Amino acid sequence: MTNARNSDLRDVKALIFDVFGTVVNWRESIIAEVSDAAARHGKPDGDWARFADDWRAWYGKSTRELSRNEGQWRLVDEIHREKLDVLLEDYGLADVMSEESKRYLNRAWHRLKGWPDSPSGLRRLKSKYIIATASNGNLALLVNMAKHADLPWDAVMSPDVYGAYKPSPKVYRNASRLLGLQTNQVMMVAAHTGDLEAAAREGLATGFVYRPFEHGADRPVKEPDTSAYDIAATDFNDMADQLGCD
Amino acid sequence: MTNARNSDLRDVKALIFDVFGTVVNWRESIIAEVSDAAARHGKPDGDWARFADDWRAWYGKSTRELSRNEGQWRLVDEIHREKLDVLLEDYGLADVMSEESKRYLNRAWHRLKGWPDSPSGLRRLKSKYIIATASNGNLALLVNMAKHADLPWDAVMSPDVYGAYKPSPKVYRNASRLLGLQTNQVMMVAAHTGDLEAAAREGLATGFVYRPFEHGADRPVKEPDTSAYDIAATDFNDMADQLGCD
Repeated sequence: MTNARNSDLRDVKALIFDVFGTVVNWRESIIAEVSDAAARHGKPDGDWARFADDWRAWYGKSTRELSRNEGQWRLVDEIHREKLDVLLEDYGLADVMSEESKRYLNRAWHRLKGWPDSPSGLRRLKSKYIIATASNGNLALLVNMAKHADLPWDAVMSPDVYGAYKPSPKVYRNASRLLGLQTNQVMMVAAHTGDLEAAAREGLATGFVYRPFEHGADRPVKEPDTSAYDIAATDFNDMADQLGCD
Repeated sequence: MTNARNSDLRDVKALIFDVFGTVVNWRESIIAEVSDAAARHGKPDGDWARFADDWRAWYGKSTRELSRNEGQWRLVDEIHREKLDVLLEDYGLADVMSEESKRYLNRAWHRLKGWPDSPSGLRRLKSKYIIATASNGNLALLVNMAKHADLPWDAVMSPDVYGAYKPSPKVYRNASRLLGLQTNQVMMVAAHTGDLEAAAREGLATGFVYRPFEHGADRPVKEPDTSAYDIAATDFNDMADQLGCD
């Protein structure tokens, strides 16, 4: 593991955030939207948690592939729709839902809810730092989500802007460059260690936020060894406290 | 002039804004910063309004050239610095200012002030629409300016993001695409008719805002014929009223 705890946090001017899982509780939002849609279409019973997990896993697999193949390009909206069609078929919903309902459900990813501390914690962090997204979601998705979940980004940055997908090193370097900063002036904030390690390799500072329930209240994520990160926080308000924000 | 007053404003989901002159009063801010810097360096007297106008004109000329040469790319920060060095020489300031002071002054464009109605009017427009920048300024400049001038953008979009400079048609088309919208779902808002006409040619709706004092209180801009635009407003609060925002 890269030892990044050498970063001087006084240099940091901007925080860039992983979004799915770190800022928004994608799983609970998706389970709720899928089960609502299924019930409205006469299928009240189903393992919607598994549906949500499988949908999410496809996104992970697809964006990892894109991150390794520079120049390849797909909207996350399209990646989501591809898997949604397969899942609706598997769960017996493909024929009972209209195209309009499918499109609406696919955009559930634009309507994810933040973790309880996200709006207030981000506002506090924003009072001292530039706060921006560093997500593999597409720009429209992130902009719509920000309005829906009250996420007060200074800048929404996405693969459309970076020209690359995480964890490509290009994302971390381009984020810094676009903000007019050196990499050591930017901190990557994520609940996922892989994202932080990729950022640390490019010279960014690292802020871990612990989201134990990203995969469900019944499947808490074990807290990893955070000794290599510049900051480890229990939520964004704790991070704001540690960084001396009002 | 393109007759755009056919747009159905009920389709509009996002407003994209020209920034310099339309949202911020660049001239007054730049005159103040230049005259402060000059006074601090022992040159209290000078035609700082002309300095500001010449500085701005160079930006206009340079970005127009870039807009015609696709693939060419320069940060507006660099364009500003190029002309600043010439002007400091002309006004006898080149040798008395440190490199640090020059850099700070060059970033005066990151610290422009909004027109008085900009923060409140944009907040009202934001309650109903996605609001985003469509400026030739670079992303860092626009993000820093937004924090400084309290401009609550949902998305900051710039040539770094569009891959083109206004008035290239690509800017208006890419803005719509990045927001996940059709061109008729986006309204270009500007105080400059050329920007609105270029947007209308790509199918965007158009909103004119009258900024009579962009070039100084003593040189009011005559109100143009606005009959071709979907909306003509005296400021952003008037625009919010006309669009039925709270």
